Amino acid sequence: MTLRIAEIFGPTIQGEGAVIGAPTVFVRAGGCDYRCSWCDSLHAVDSAYRHTWAKMDTAEVWAKVTELAKAPLTVSISGGNPAIQDFGPLIEMGHDEGYTFALETQGSVAQPWFAKLDTLVLSPKPPSSGEVVDWAKFDDCLTAAKDAPTVLKIVIFDEDDYLWAREVADRYPALPLYLQPGNHTPPPPEAEDAAIDMDGINDRMEWLVDRALADNWYRPRILPQLHVLIWGNKRGV
Amino acid sequence: MTLRIAEIFGPTIQGEGAVIGAPTVFVRAGGCDYRCSWCDSLHAVDSAYRHTWAKMDTAEVWAKVTELAKAPLTVSISGGNPAIQDFGPLIEMGHDEGYTFALETQGSVAQPWFAKLDTLVLSPKPPSSGEVVDWAKFDDCLTAAKDAPTVLKIVIFDEDDYLWAREVADRYPALPLYLQPGNHTPPPPEAEDAAIDMDGINDRMEWLVDRALADNWYRPRILPQLHVLIWGNKRGV
Repeated sequence: MTLRIAEIFGPTIQGEGAVIGAPTVFVRAGGCDYRCSWCDSLHAVDSAYRHTWAKMDTAEVWAKVTELAKAPLTVSISGGNPAIQDFGPLIEMGHDEGYTFALETQGSVAQPWFAKLDTLVLSPKPPSSGEVVDWAKFDDCLTAAKDAPTVLKIVIFDEDDYLWAREVADRYPALPLYLQPGNHTPPPPEAEDAAIDMDGINDRMEWLVDRALADNWYRPRILPQLHVLIWGNKRGV
Repeated sequence: MTLRIAEIFGPTIQGEGAVIGAPTVFVRAGGCDYRCSWCDSLHAVDSAYRHTWAKMDTAEVWAKVTELAKAPLTVSISGGNPAIQDFGPLIEMGHDEGYTFALETQGSVAQPWFAKLDTLVLSPKPPSSGEVVDWAKFDDCLTAAKDAPTVLKIVIFDEDDYLWAREVADRYPALPLYLQPGNHTPPPPEAEDAAIDMDGINDRMEWLVDRALADNWYRPRILPQLHVLIWGNKRGV
């Protein structure tokens, strides 16, 4: 079985969500069924970059991960949408050696191997993305996850996104919830170190914190993209 | 029973450690048995500021918390060293209304009410602080906590602190571990919005991440003080 891999890098620290700060190797899958307007990983999404994606089998991906991290840590499988490929065998291979696995996906494609994950991060895309969530498929992802720890992570750019996030959160009261202010300056795919609008990122973080707290809405954890605050839009960190 | 309280503020988001990003009201106790060289809360430590500490009974503290946050959230009791006073009744009062409690302490004084906490954050102070940890007392804190979820948080300024943190971590292999780069520019107690050395903070964060990862040491989660990155040294946020 061949996997399309946009990049494998690390170890670095996870900059987002439930395991923020945890040393992590990232396996970024190539290919996506979505085209979010503000996508920050176009180099792993747009088929114009398909020629840059490596075709690797599971053993080759695992060899690269263990070349980068010689002791067990968290492997984050992201994309693109990694759920359109089969990462089940990679997770089994890694579990045998004590590594743990997180998967980041929008929740548009369910896979039986979700149940093997140590953390399933479902990121339904808000209205500003231009995509529309198919909730039946999203619920299929939750069903597939079975007892695997699952969290919701919602990126928020504006008031419409915020109001939508509140509805989504109410729909899934049992899931831990993370809100993340959007970054309006994703790097162009060819940039290794692109400029970012740090003031804008900070402004949106402050706005989002104020917005939720003004509503006395204390359920979400609100976290910026730490790696962007520290390293900007540089890739591979 | 009268409590000495330096400040009560929030809700804002927790900027550090295990519940980073969680909406929180902070109850900062006045008084401390330590005098860390780089203390970032001298206004709650140095007895020269004792005249600014309010004497409040438990019901008054609780009334202020619920005036600030009208729905359940996390209350973080910090200081100074809050363990030199009795916050057991406050925790009981809050639990009855569904609030949860985290306590931040260096681990120099054990209290039976630690066992009531939702999160006990023990922050043993590294060599750069100028303080020396009494490990028998620290272990008393762990014993007092019983089944209360307990984490280690260690602030790191330099190589000596890092090597010390590795030894401490090995001593407590079962505790979740958080490392936090130190801030060399704590605000003077009278400043509401003091200058910070953001480049220095970022440099120490990058150094700490690189240092741990170069050792293939993947156990700690490494997190900066998010509130300082977002709001600088401004107080009350």
